[in-house]
Amino acid sequence: MDTIPSLSDIKRAHQRISKVTLRTPVMTSDGINEMTGCSVYFKCENFQKVGAFKMRGASNFILGYRPEDRVNGFATHSSGNHAQAVAHAAALSGNKAYVVMPENSTKVKIQATKHYGADVILCDNNEEARIKTCDDVIARTGAVFVPPFDDYRIIAGQATAAKEFIEEVETMDTIMTPVGGGGLAAGTALVANYLDPNIEVVLGEPKKADDTFRSLKSGKIEHITNPDTIADGLKVTIGERNFDIIQKYVKEVITVTEKEIIDAMKIIWERMKIIIEPSCAVPFAVLLKNKEQFAGKEVGIILTGGNVDLSNLPF
Amino acid sequence: MDTIPSLSDIKRAHQRISKVTLRTPVMTSDGINEMTGCSVYFKCENFQKVGAFKMRGASNFILGYRPEDRVNGFATHSSGNHAQAVAHAAALSGNKAYVVMPENSTKVKIQATKHYGADVILCDNNEEARIKTCDDVIARTGAVFVPPFDDYRIIAGQATAAKEFIEEVETMDTIMTPVGGGGLAAGTALVANYLDPNIEVVLGEPKKADDTFRSLKSGKIEHITNPDTIADGLKVTIGERNFDIIQKYVKEVITVTEKEIIDAMKIIWERMKIIIEPSCAVPFAVLLKNKEQFAGKEVGIILTGGNVDLSNLPF
Repeated sequence: MDTIPSLSDIKRAHQRISKVTLRTPVMTSDGINEMTGCSVYFKCENFQKVGAFKMRGASNFILGYRPEDRVNGFATHSSGNHAQAVAHAAALSGNKAYVVMPENSTKVKIQATKHYGADVILCDNNEEARIKTCDDVIARTGAVFVPPFDDYRIIAGQATAAKEFIEEVETMDTIMTPVGGGGLAAGTALVANYLDPNIEVVLGEPKKADDTFRSLKSGKIEHITNPDTIADGLKVTIGERNFDIIQKYVKEVITVTEKEIIDAMKIIWERMKIIIEPSCAVPFAVLLKNKEQFAGKEVGIILTGGNVDLSNLPF
Repeated sequence: MDTIPSLSDIKRAHQRISKVTLRTPVMTSDGINEMTGCSVYFKCENFQKVGAFKMRGASNFILGYRPEDRVNGFATHSSGNHAQAVAHAAALSGNKAYVVMPENSTKVKIQATKHYGADVILCDNNEEARIKTCDDVIARTGAVFVPPFDDYRIIAGQATAAKEFIEEVETMDTIMTPVGGGGLAAGTALVANYLDPNIEVVLGEPKKADDTFRSLKSGKIEHITNPDTIADGLKVTIGERNFDIIQKYVKEVITVTEKEIIDAMKIIWERMKIIIEPSCAVPFAVLLKNKEQFAGKEVGIILTGGNVDLSNLPF
C-alpha cells in the first residue's frame, strides 16, 4: 500500500482491527467545559489496549499480512507505546514479536513489552544502535519490520480513532491531537477530511519539539534531534508521508511550553479522574492557552495514552 | 421516612436524582480478569459528580424536601466527599449549603467545597467541635441537617449506584463495596436483595478500622475512634440503621491491610488508567487477597470515589 489511504482503506482497517482493539469511550466534564468556555469531548485512547492508540496502527499493519506471509513474525525498535503495541498485536495475531529497546528504557516498559510475549533485545541508547540491532534481528529471523508512523497502513490504523470519534460526536467543529511522528495526526486529518471537511484539525506540539510547527512554516521537514521535552512520545521528527498529509489537511499547529503541558495533565487527572501521559496533555494545553479561539465551539480531543511511571510524576 | 427503604423508595430516589447525577459507566479490564481469575466489573462512581457516590445520597436527601421546606438551605459537617456532595447538590437544587469542616482539612477539599457554592465554616479538629459548630449554624440559619449515612433517605440514594449496576450487568454473582458509615454498603445490600437475592454482597474494610467486621461477630455496634488508616473515607463507625440492614443482607465483611489497599490502588491506576482514592481500593484488595473464593465468578465492584491529593500519593 503506497498511496494515501482512501476512506475505504480506513474502513477496511477499522474492520480488520475490531477484534483486537477496543472502541474507546468518549468522556466529557462539566468542570472542564466551564473552565474552557467550550464543549470538549475526550476520546479516551488511554483506555485502549496497551494504554495507547498505537495499538490501532500496529494491529492494522500486522493483520494486513496474510497468515502465510507473517510466519517469521514482526520486529520493531521503540522505547515507548509502539513497543507494547507491536508486542501485543503480534501475539493476538499468533505471531512472534522482536522488540529492540534502548537499555535505558524504564523497567516498567521493558516488563510490559515482555509481558505481551515479545522477545526484547536491548541496545545502546542511540538511533544508529537501534536501527543496526533491529536490522540484525530481521536478518536473523526473517521478521517483518513494523514502522512506527511513516507508513500508510499505520496511518490508516491510527485514523480509526478519529473515525469512531466523528461517528459518535457528529457536531464537532474542531478535532485536536498531539503531533510527534504524525501517524495519528495524519490519520485524523485524513478521516476528518473524508467524513466532514468542515471539521478543523488542529495539532498540539511541545515548543521544545516543534519540528512540525516549523516544517509547516518552511514547507519542508525540519529535523529535531533528541529534544528535551516531558512529552516523550513526541520527540521524533515528523515522517514524510505524514507531513505530506498534514500540509494538505491540517489547519494549524500550536505549540505549548513544558509547564503548560504539566498543568494541563494535572487538570485532566484532577477533574476527570483519568490517567493520561504528558504527550497526551498537549492538545488540552493548547485549548487552555487559546480559549478565545475555541470559545463556544465543540472541540474533540483524542487522549492518546495513559502510560506513565507513577513513581516519577511531574507534580 | 423512618422505615427501611422499599424497592419503590429506591426507584423514586433514582428518578429524583437523575437530573443532578450521572449514570456512571461500567468498565472492565482483560489484564485484571487474567490477574484475578474471575470476571470483574467496575462501576465507576469516581466519575460521578463531585468525584464520589456521595452525590447520590445527598441529592436524594435534599431533593426529597419540597421547595418551600428547604428555603433555609442545608448544613452538614464533613472533611470528605460528603462535604462536596452536600455543597453541589444544594446548589443544583437552588439552595444554600453550610459546610462545617475541620481546620486541618486539605486545602484542595476546602476549595472544592467553596467552589460548589457552599459557605465553609472551619472548626477545631474533633468530633465535638464539629457537632457543636454545626448545631450553631443550624440554630442561626434554620438550615436542615444532612446526615452523612445513618439515614434511610441517604441509604436509598446510595442504593441507586448498585441499582444501575445490577441492571447493566445482570449476571453478577457477587457485588462488593467498602464499608465505612455504611450508607453505600447498606443501600447496595438492600437493592441487591430486592433485584436478585442470589447476588452475594461482600464488604471490604481496612483491618485498622474493622468496626463492622467486629460488630457482625459480636452482634452489636463496636465503636472505633479516629483509626489510623489511609482509607480516610472509612474511619467512621457503622451507623445504626446501616448495621441493621447489613446484618440482614450482607454475606460477609473481609478486612485488608494498609499495604494491600495501596497495592490494589496502584494496580487499578496502572492497569485501568483511572484515578481512585484509597478507600475505593479496599474491595479490590479483598478480591486480590481471596482469589480462590471468587475464582470463575462474575464480581461487581463499586469504585466509590477518585478524590486524592496528587501531591501526596502513597506510591
